[in-house]
Amino acid sequence: MKRLAIIGSTGSIGTSALAVVDAHPDRLQVVSLAAGDNAALLAEQVAKYRPLAVAMATEAGAERLRATGVALPGEVRTGSDGLIAVATHPDVDIVLYASSGSVALEAVLAAIEAGKTIALANKEVLVMAGELVTAAARRRQVAILPVDSEHNAIHQCLHGHDGLHVRRLILTASGGPFRGRSAEALDQVTVADALKHPTWQMGRKITIDSATLMNKGLEVIEAHWLFGVRPDQIDVVIHPQSVVHSLVEFVDGSMLAQLGVTDMRLPIQYACSYPDRWAAPVPPLDLTRAATLQFEPPALDLFPCLGLAYRALHAGGDVPCVLNAANEVAVASFLEGRIGFTDIPRVIESTLAAHVPAPADTLMAVRRADAWARAHAAHVAVQSTTRGI
Amino acid sequence: MKRLAIIGSTGSIGTSALAVVDAHPDRLQVVSLAAGDNAALLAEQVAKYRPLAVAMATEAGAERLRATGVALPGEVRTGSDGLIAVATHPDVDIVLYASSGSVALEAVLAAIEAGKTIALANKEVLVMAGELVTAAARRRQVAILPVDSEHNAIHQCLHGHDGLHVRRLILTASGGPFRGRSAEALDQVTVADALKHPTWQMGRKITIDSATLMNKGLEVIEAHWLFGVRPDQIDVVIHPQSVVHSLVEFVDGSMLAQLGVTDMRLPIQYACSYPDRWAAPVPPLDLTRAATLQFEPPALDLFPCLGLAYRALHAGGDVPCVLNAANEVAVASFLEGRIGFTDIPRVIESTLAAHVPAPADTLMAVRRADAWARAHAAHVAVQSTTRGI
Repeated sequence: MKRLAIIGSTGSIGTSALAVVDAHPDRLQVVSLAAGDNAALLAEQVAKYRPLAVAMATEAGAERLRATGVALPGEVRTGSDGLIAVATHPDVDIVLYASSGSVALEAVLAAIEAGKTIALANKEVLVMAGELVTAAARRRQVAILPVDSEHNAIHQCLHGHDGLHVRRLILTASGGPFRGRSAEALDQVTVADALKHPTWQMGRKITIDSATLMNKGLEVIEAHWLFGVRPDQIDVVIHPQSVVHSLVEFVDGSMLAQLGVTDMRLPIQYACSYPDRWAAPVPPLDLTRAATLQFEPPALDLFPCLGLAYRALHAGGDVPCVLNAANEVAVASFLEGRIGFTDIPRVIESTLAAHVPAPADTLMAVRRADAWARAHAAHVAVQSTTRGI
Repeated sequence: MKRLAIIGSTGSIGTSALAVVDAHPDRLQVVSLAAGDNAALLAEQVAKYRPLAVAMATEAGAERLRATGVALPGEVRTGSDGLIAVATHPDVDIVLYASSGSVALEAVLAAIEAGKTIALANKEVLVMAGELVTAAARRRQVAILPVDSEHNAIHQCLHGHDGLHVRRLILTASGGPFRGRSAEALDQVTVADALKHPTWQMGRKITIDSATLMNKGLEVIEAHWLFGVRPDQIDVVIHPQSVVHSLVEFVDGSMLAQLGVTDMRLPIQYACSYPDRWAAPVPPLDLTRAATLQFEPPALDLFPCLGLAYRALHAGGDVPCVLNAANEVAVASFLEGRIGFTDIPRVIESTLAAHVPAPADTLMAVRRADAWARAHAAHVAVQSTTRGI
């Protein structure tokens, strides 16, 4: 029996994780749950899974949870302390980070210190603080199992193989809803357009990141930290069908690819079962129905976010953290209708240009770079809005 | 340094193997060579690699080899004894079976008894005597490394993974030159048509087997013996581009696939280097140039050889051996212009129908079934020719 903490249990990944728990009641047990805002759903989950610890993002949320009248296991914790309490509960074996955004960073570091296995669906943590997090994991000999379908695919392809035999990692990208659009057409993109992802059902932030290709850029940075490869060993290929989830090229030119249906329950379950594999509650991929798989190079000129991410990774230090923070602000501004789709990379580039790179070897340095970049990007976004009027 | 015997050094696989040796002179050394008929090329190879033992198929061939005047390492051995001498030379670590046909069977068993690693490009040996060969390899703890691109792909996909996690092996097939043809069109196929393979350059026998899909049928039988899976765990999918060389589906629905360029030097080198990997003398696959990969179910009604192979594998005992022998006779008859393309499965089916299944647990039983099937199939082929007139 593996005992699970889920950070972000009411979101898309969190609910999929609970579906995996439902499929394997003899193998997985929920110990603790943390939600952002959705007190009603967390109340249902508490009633069903009877966790030993729960947290909500804010005191207002905690109050709403208490108001549901559900039997709670004790105090409802909040904020970063709440996430840390949920992640480091002594009965927990694996912590699944299913929420997006940078708020989970301290809770990841705390769980590593507590010796928990980390199942990571959150992108920002490694992008902001890859050096800190992976160094801590090495020191404590804690495994970080990627849940993101691309890194999970690479983990599966690398399993059992010698790292010295790896020449290149190839991350596949669906290309998002705007693959093949002209620069002019991209200028006219609306929020509703950008939220229509062709192959994956995901949260709003990650769906926009997928449309700009920043999602893939963040994954390139994560791949560097997760698999210990150089930036020039990580490539991106557009694969609109999202059937091949990523590939590894070995020194002899042979490639291994992981394929599967586009259902996050698969990589979540893999991270929970590893190194075992369990029967999955999803139908297998029928290759003859997938029929045609296409591959093409990404249009770096039309989707500059991918190039910005490579630039940030090459620069190192706190630059990826700044990239990530500027992107979070830019995407939020776009979702609020305050800037256009093609303003997103402009806000990021302008923030990177104003930034003086520094090391990212302490939590404080990371948080400082993050705060500076958010403030700067917000300022740039407002200017961009003003210009737009 | 790994020391190599090559059975069939002048053929397509054999010359590719020597190209791999040329690329890694510090890692591979040729100890012994056996050729079928091509004395002139073997003489060149002897002059270049200075093997410690050589063999030709026949005494006439040996005489031609001596007549070239090349400095020979001693007696030129012939026949099955010649293959055994080459395969079991005390300095040999790995024996590469690069010839097609059933003649190598005794030499495979002898090399296993001598504790050599087996690199197997020959299909017939496992189809005829899979039980005998794999039981001997288990007993002597000898590895059988498949060189065939499909089994090599599966070997790469399985490496490091628990066999209990495997749900299904999926062999890809190019579909051969006649994919999509009507039954009427298949009746009109000429030898020249059948020898035009769309993606692989191979010998004549295997090219015809590829056109009838018997090649894939033989591979299904081999996969059963190589990987210890049940017949119903082996599927075939048509993939005309031959970029995905085969796949493994795990119990959780996840699939791993091996991809690469269509160059036999890759799987040959993998078998020689395993468990290491060495830089290969071929350019890597560019997925964005491969561009489109298609998958479709095989047309079992139009290509009955595949179904016959599954039937033979299910029947077990000496039935696969009979299938293989009947196929060799039928293909030879077709290549000699004596029977039509669609007569090939008819000859095999008629031979299987007349056969009384028996165990294949001794070399004598295998050879007896093989001889009976050849005689019967030749008889059927002649009848078929007579009918044709």
